[in-house]
Amino acid sequence: MKIALDAMGGDNAPEATVHGAVWAARDFGLKVQLVGQPEVIEAELAKHNVKGLDLSVTAASEVIEMDDSPSAAVKHKKDSSMVVALRSVKSGECDAFVSAGNSGGALAAALFGLGRIKGIKRPALSTIFPADSEAGCCLLLDIGANTDVRPEFLLQFGLMGHHYVHSVLKIPNPRVGLLSTGEEEYKGNILVQEATKIFKQSKLNFVGNIEAKDVPLGLADVVVTDGFTGNIYIKGVQGAASIIQKALAREIKRRPLAILGAFLARGAIKALRTKVDYREFGGGPLLGVNGIVVIAHGRSDGYAIRNAIRVARKAASEEIVQAIENGLRKWEENEELSEVTV
Amino acid sequence: MKIALDAMGGDNAPEATVHGAVWAARDFGLKVQLVGQPEVIEAELAKHNVKGLDLSVTAASEVIEMDDSPSAAVKHKKDSSMVVALRSVKSGECDAFVSAGNSGGALAAALFGLGRIKGIKRPALSTIFPADSEAGCCLLLDIGANTDVRPEFLLQFGLMGHHYVHSVLKIPNPRVGLLSTGEEEYKGNILVQEATKIFKQSKLNFVGNIEAKDVPLGLADVVVTDGFTGNIYIKGVQGAASIIQKALAREIKRRPLAILGAFLARGAIKALRTKVDYREFGGGPLLGVNGIVVIAHGRSDGYAIRNAIRVARKAASEEIVQAIENGLRKWEENEELSEVTV
Repeated sequence: MKIALDAMGGDNAPEATVHGAVWAARDFGLKVQLVGQPEVIEAELAKHNVKGLDLSVTAASEVIEMDDSPSAAVKHKKDSSMVVALRSVKSGECDAFVSAGNSGGALAAALFGLGRIKGIKRPALSTIFPADSEAGCCLLLDIGANTDVRPEFLLQFGLMGHHYVHSVLKIPNPRVGLLSTGEEEYKGNILVQEATKIFKQSKLNFVGNIEAKDVPLGLADVVVTDGFTGNIYIKGVQGAASIIQKALAREIKRRPLAILGAFLARGAIKALRTKVDYREFGGGPLLGVNGIVVIAHGRSDGYAIRNAIRVARKAASEEIVQAIENGLRKWEENEELSEVTV
Repeated sequence: MKIALDAMGGDNAPEATVHGAVWAARDFGLKVQLVGQPEVIEAELAKHNVKGLDLSVTAASEVIEMDDSPSAAVKHKKDSSMVVALRSVKSGECDAFVSAGNSGGALAAALFGLGRIKGIKRPALSTIFPADSEAGCCLLLDIGANTDVRPEFLLQFGLMGHHYVHSVLKIPNPRVGLLSTGEEEYKGNILVQEATKIFKQSKLNFVGNIEAKDVPLGLADVVVTDGFTGNIYIKGVQGAASIIQKALAREIKRRPLAILGAFLARGAIKALRTKVDYREFGGGPLLGVNGIVVIAHGRSDGYAIRNAIRVARKAASEEIVQAIENGLRKWEENEELSEVTV
């Protein structure tokens, strides 16, 4: 198993990316190909003990920056770390691609470099979201790849989500829901109302419409939405969680007794933080492209990168691309969707 | 000043509504007309000391339930508390209407009972959201009245939001932003991209596109979105805040030292809760209808109802309907929007 890592991507690159690569190579015993400017990567690698680890460096002179326009960057920066890394996935040299860089850029580079799975109209960016279900999480997609969609795109997102949680998270008959403004079918916008009709007719285990407040309750294993709404939802929640944390810290700092209290409660606070920390989930798979692509948070540190590599490894070993391809074929031939026995 | 209150609306009615009415009448010295089933309301009133308070009861035999379909309910339940209460606003007997009941029902009843302000294409439901700005909050709209909109509706939402924060919150030149998936103009869906163009050409103090994570940072005083996205955003944030709180309580309960810690930090926790508690903000004004309508959270308790009445009173005393009407006229005559000197 060999992972191509965009060593230059993310707010904390190359420190975080190199650190994450070293960490993942050690913990999971896999090969990591670090793609980017060799002198920069080598300088970072020198800070770590890499004895016995299978790390390689592949040169790429350019970087797709956070504020680059995605499509233009992919077109013009042919020697960027993203484009070069994806080439080695396309050629079969690497099994998966991981990046914490410009997510629009990674998406465009993946589409351009790997193409879509046959029959998939639009790839979707997904994220694992903590939820009170048996699996402890649900898959939310699309969170930003497609801002304007049609109902049939949403249905394909549902199918891809089904296969991901089925193959990778080993959930036997994944419950699939549509994100909406109410459970009732007459609620939601026209897109969701139209999508509800075709979801009900499909072979998916469709559990209906899920309100935004209920996503963390784990009412569905796969929550489907368009990339605009999904992005607003996920960033809204992240922003609120971050501001609550900061505001609480501010209130605590004002009160000496509360400072002591927070110290005594630190175990509980840490346990909660671990549960809701995006770093634990590492990154979200981009489903529907013809290869394994995991997009990590731009603010990823070494630990988040390590975990994004873990996600990529799991998706590759479970052959998620083939699972989606087969699922789509079965769908078209009107066969039942496969069930996992766990 | 007299407020017509839907005494039967909300998960905790009539206890919460009657309690809130008594509280508001005492604290703000205003008249409250309690509309609903007289025997039910009288029984609740008997539990309170109402000496010297100006509370009246107006009979309405029916109730629009939480799971009623809004338009059908308004059409068929002509003697419902919502419809009757709105009639007394329409007639001029009352200055504003407050309900914590079925929000779709309240919206439909308000549209039917009061009509729209001349020139307003679609009324929008707004909410006051805590934010790190000078005012300590921002106005977010639409959060559910219109699931499918056109760019020009969003522009009117911006205008109505401008006049609300200008007249009621006394913010001189309100900063208006569009909720989007990124600050860059090429981001967002087609609706937002089209709206961005007309916002830029308008006389609003348009500050560009606001990411969902940045709403609590107070980058804008008015955040405009469609009712589908706004509803997902607000419920997503509420759901996440609620689950974080519950999960933290669970982790604390497992650890004796953490229980002591939480006790010592209770002042800080309470201070934070007050800041982000929807009950403090009471309810959201429905802007664009020809009268003052405030829609409170379905889970409102007495304190939330009291505060929703406070919001209604403020909107009525600042003549927000006239402000929007004048603003729209000035807009059409291409005059500058008014500025408040504070």
